[in-house]
Amino acid sequence: MTVTNFQLRAQIEALHARYAHALDGDELEKWPDFFTPQGRYRITTAENESRGLPLAVLYCEGQPMLRDRVASLRHANIYEPQRYRHMISSVLLEEETATSVKSIANFLVVRIMENGETMLFASGRYVDRVTLPELRYEERVVICDSRRFDTLLAIPL
Amino acid sequence: MTVTNFQLRAQIEALHARYAHALDGDELEKWPDFFTPQGRYRITTAENESRGLPLAVLYCEGQPMLRDRVASLRHANIYEPQRYRHMISSVLLEEETATSVKSIANFLVVRIMENGETMLFASGRYVDRVTLPELRYEERVVICDSRRFDTLLAIPL
Amino acid sequence: MTVTNFQLRAQIEALHARYAHALDGDELEKWPDFFTPQGRYRITTAENESRGLPLAVLYCEGQPMLRDRVASLRHANIYEPQRYRHMISSVLLEEETATSVKSIANFLVVRIMENGETMLFASGRYVDRVTLPELRYEERVVICDSRRFDTLLAIPL
Repeated sequence: MTVTNFQLRAQIEALHARYAHALDGDELEKWPDFFTPQGRYRITTAENESRGLPLAVLYCEGQPMLRDRVASLRHANIYEPQRYRHMISSVLLEEETATSVKSIANFLVVRIMENGETMLFASGRYVDRVTLPELRYEERVVICDSRRFDTLLAIPL
Repeated sequence: MTVTNFQLRAQIEALHARYAHALDGDELEKWPDFFTPQGRYRITTAENESRGLPLAVLYCEGQPMLRDRVASLRHANIYEPQRYRHMISSVLLEEETATSVKSIANFLVVRIMENGETMLFASGRYVDRVTLPELRYEERVVICDSRRFDTLLAIPL
Repeated sequence: MTVTNFQLRAQIEALHARYAHALDGDELEKWPDFFTPQGRYRITTAENESRGLPLAVLYCEGQPMLRDRVASLRHANIYEPQRYRHMISSVLLEEETATSVKSIANFLVVRIMENGETMLFASGRYVDRVTLPELRYEERVVICDSRRFDTLLAIPL
């Protein structure tokens, strides 16, 4: 069942927007707070997902693990300076309950290197379980279209 | 006259989102059901459109013809496996009547090949006539910015 | 404070959409009317912005100056014909007052040349001050991610 509650739709879109701006503005320390205390974050590929493979490119469970991830990125930052820009569209809401809603959305991320070079970095969809009325990710699964991954995958998608 | 009915806006955005996810998720069989029984689907170029040329890159009229198109794609599928990802934004509503509304929206489609290579595939705008309250496309015109077209054009835009 | 007024959100999204379609449809003469009489338009880079540098790639203040810009583009148009397509997402509203609201949004612009070649042209964010209830830009700051700029920068972003 598609949820057509337009007020909820606006709230979920605003949540995704805050998430995108935090990452694009290099405010990584805010990232764990978008999740519930036990929140799960997983990056996988469409290929693995369609085959039902549990393999993840990245898996974090709970805010402490999400904070560790940010700390590693900050301390072990050996990468070339870069920016990301998230585009998010086509939000679909499903399975609304009194305490959560499922959100599916398309994303496209471009990466801008220090020298100005811009490239398509990743595309795919977010499949989320968002708690209500707190509006936090209980689970965010990032399903990337491509199986070709930059091994320096650094900033969260 | 621009329509500022925010509830209708949310409904139209949800329709475009369902359409995008059906195509990106390779659920082509759902595609004809987004149209009315006599619904028209046309792909053209901005160049032809601005010159008033009736030429279409693709034209389908009515659900049976749309279903034929899907069947051809399924049976004659000689193409390299690929995924699409639709980004849709800047929805504008105009000319609302009791039974329909005109929607204009920008789109950007990226194509992801089996080997992981991602490319900008098409950009342009959708110009739609959507029936109310059923929310189906009576007409969807896909106006592509580029006149350079992949001759293997397979999956609907 | 994030503004969660969903009706206002729909209005601002519709404003950004009209702006995008005016530029993508080459209706440049409409562009100054999206601003207040004293409206300011500034293109800068993320690098300059984060360093607090007041340098702008382009700066216009007031409708007469915006109209001059359009006139120059029309009269001195020595550039290769091209189209733009704006994608806008992740709108965030902040600092709402009785007479204005701040809007932040991500953008991605692709450029389509006469020969059909399509490229990522620019990405970044719009930081706007929009007057209420008129819905005009009192200020639109276009902060581009890349410092590498096409010197033929012609059509407004």
